[in-house]
Amino acid sequence: MGNKIRIGITGYGNLGRGVEAAIKQNPDMELVAVFSRRDPSSVIVADPKVKVLPIASAQDYKNEIDVMILCGGSATDLPEQGPAFAAHFNTIDSFDTHAKIPDYFAAVDEVAKSSGMVSIISVGWDPGMFSLNRMLGEAILPEGETYTFWGKGLSQGHSDAVRRVAGVKAAVQYTIPIEEAVNRVRNGENPLLSTKEKHLRECFVVAEDGADLSVIEKTIKEMPHYFSDYQTVVNFISEEELHANHSKMMHGGFVIRSGETGEGNKQIMEFSLKLDSNPEYTASVLTAYARAAYKMSTEGQSGAKTVFDVPVGMLSPKSPEQLRKELL
Amino acid sequence: MGNKIRIGITGYGNLGRGVEAAIKQNPDMELVAVFSRRDPSSVIVADPKVKVLPIASAQDYKNEIDVMILCGGSATDLPEQGPAFAAHFNTIDSFDTHAKIPDYFAAVDEVAKSSGMVSIISVGWDPGMFSLNRMLGEAILPEGETYTFWGKGLSQGHSDAVRRVAGVKAAVQYTIPIEEAVNRVRNGENPLLSTKEKHLRECFVVAEDGADLSVIEKTIKEMPHYFSDYQTVVNFISEEELHANHSKMMHGGFVIRSGETGEGNKQIMEFSLKLDSNPEYTASVLTAYARAAYKMSTEGQSGAKTVFDVPVGMLSPKSPEQLRKELL
Repeated sequence: MGNKIRIGITGYGNLGRGVEAAIKQNPDMELVAVFSRRDPSSVIVADPKVKVLPIASAQDYKNEIDVMILCGGSATDLPEQGPAFAAHFNTIDSFDTHAKIPDYFAAVDEVAKSSGMVSIISVGWDPGMFSLNRMLGEAILPEGETYTFWGKGLSQGHSDAVRRVAGVKAAVQYTIPIEEAVNRVRNGENPLLSTKEKHLRECFVVAEDGADLSVIEKTIKEMPHYFSDYQTVVNFISEEELHANHSKMMHGGFVIRSGETGEGNKQIMEFSLKLDSNPEYTASVLTAYARAAYKMSTEGQSGAKTVFDVPVGMLSPKSPEQLRKELL
Repeated sequence: MGNKIRIGITGYGNLGRGVEAAIKQNPDMELVAVFSRRDPSSVIVADPKVKVLPIASAQDYKNEIDVMILCGGSATDLPEQGPAFAAHFNTIDSFDTHAKIPDYFAAVDEVAKSSGMVSIISVGWDPGMFSLNRMLGEAILPEGETYTFWGKGLSQGHSDAVRRVAGVKAAVQYTIPIEEAVNRVRNGENPLLSTKEKHLRECFVVAEDGADLSVIEKTIKEMPHYFSDYQTVVNFISEEELHANHSKMMHGGFVIRSGETGEGNKQIMEFSLKLDSNPEYTASVLTAYARAAYKMSTEGQSGAKTVFDVPVGMLSPKSPEQLRKELL
């Protein structure tokens, strides 16, 4: 192995920690520094040899970092950091506000084209691996339907909503694909299904002492937007059980393309994920795409890219010859 | 839609017929001609407006065809046709003799580089979509194991072997993943499994009148290489049942990557196919990659390529803007 790909991490929450762990599994990469908005002395990284620096100093490291992995959130961090970092670094991010992707792409693309950097946006599993499979399904089987199911998985937004209900001490909410709907899709029936017909919502709630459980349950189930349209199950459990059984950030789901070719031959493609840790998997995808950004940049490419623009072989540390010999 | 992508088909067996059907599902493509080694008047194509021409005349159509889809077999057709056609056409093929891929790639690459054409080799589902998923799994989850299961599907080679047994009038053989092995893999146990521990073989046999069924069964089960190492089931059925229930060229299978990230978090990726028609699905993949070959050629690229070298967005008729907006 020659020179390693030098990685920087911006933002050190669950995703940033996941990227640090992923880099350790990739011997062709090294982590140069973590940049944080917090006081660096308060940020404890897993590897004490890794520098933690204020985010404002990142620019000083432009010659020491090949790819910056942006681990901030899509609501406020990335809209600002994406274009700002593309001015000095090849970047990878997991921007996931689907409706705003075209604008975000344009903003990053303009900067990255003028700086000569490669910025791969919206990387992860959805958007990311799921997008790739939606696209492949549609291109290979043009006559058919695509279904995305999410779960079983912990939904942060819905868990927060449950926690805001009066009398709730702690709670988690799982999004769960409805098995009957999944089976109809897998059988090639091509049913018309709304999101709420595909998923049910299951809550595990720790109530405060003396709270009226029936009121909590009713309030959750009738909560507009979050629960009222869905089949919702509410379970009351102890705090101990919550910590013992519901502390993993598990997630997953599947993309199914159900198509037809020739004279009515059904053809089903399915991609699925079953993840013990949602942020660590997303981080692993970001890290593999950091390798691709580095290679594309080395080839002289620039501008914003998505998973659709990347030749998949670039994600691998293996040479094209090795890939053909070992994996084709 | 502006000008259509003009496609030629070389070889008109099951795969060639599948490509003809697939082109009809893609409004940005048109089939210009089918080239065959047989007497053209004996080749009946589905669309009577399509020209059928002798393979020797293909070169005369080099200016009327954007991409030639080579639908011959890997044993004898493609080793000759791949390099020969790359001298005049962008090509797509489904070369699937895994061990010979590096040599085949080199032979096609040399010709395609000098002619300035793009030749995407070994396209289909295995090699092809399965290769892509093996590669993605390994790149995203470097610590883990990859499992490929084939089936349930009709195996042409094994069906032929059964048909050669004395007293057998007709037969089909299915390769079937062993459910217990699949479940262990899906549970993240990462077992060590040989091909024969992952698959069983089920035969449906029509015996000739008066044949000794127990001798046929014993002969099949003890057949070296094909069956002796495998768990094999032999069912005797009537000719009517064979035609009614076993005439589809169904196939499928799955690629599972079972990896670990962070502190022991299991992460499972799975890609699966359930195909009513193996050749029609392969043909659909070839047809989508024909679009990519055309785009890569238009961009000025040349040489042999594989699924690893193609930015996946190029498979789609949609523009990059549409892909980002609709599918990311």
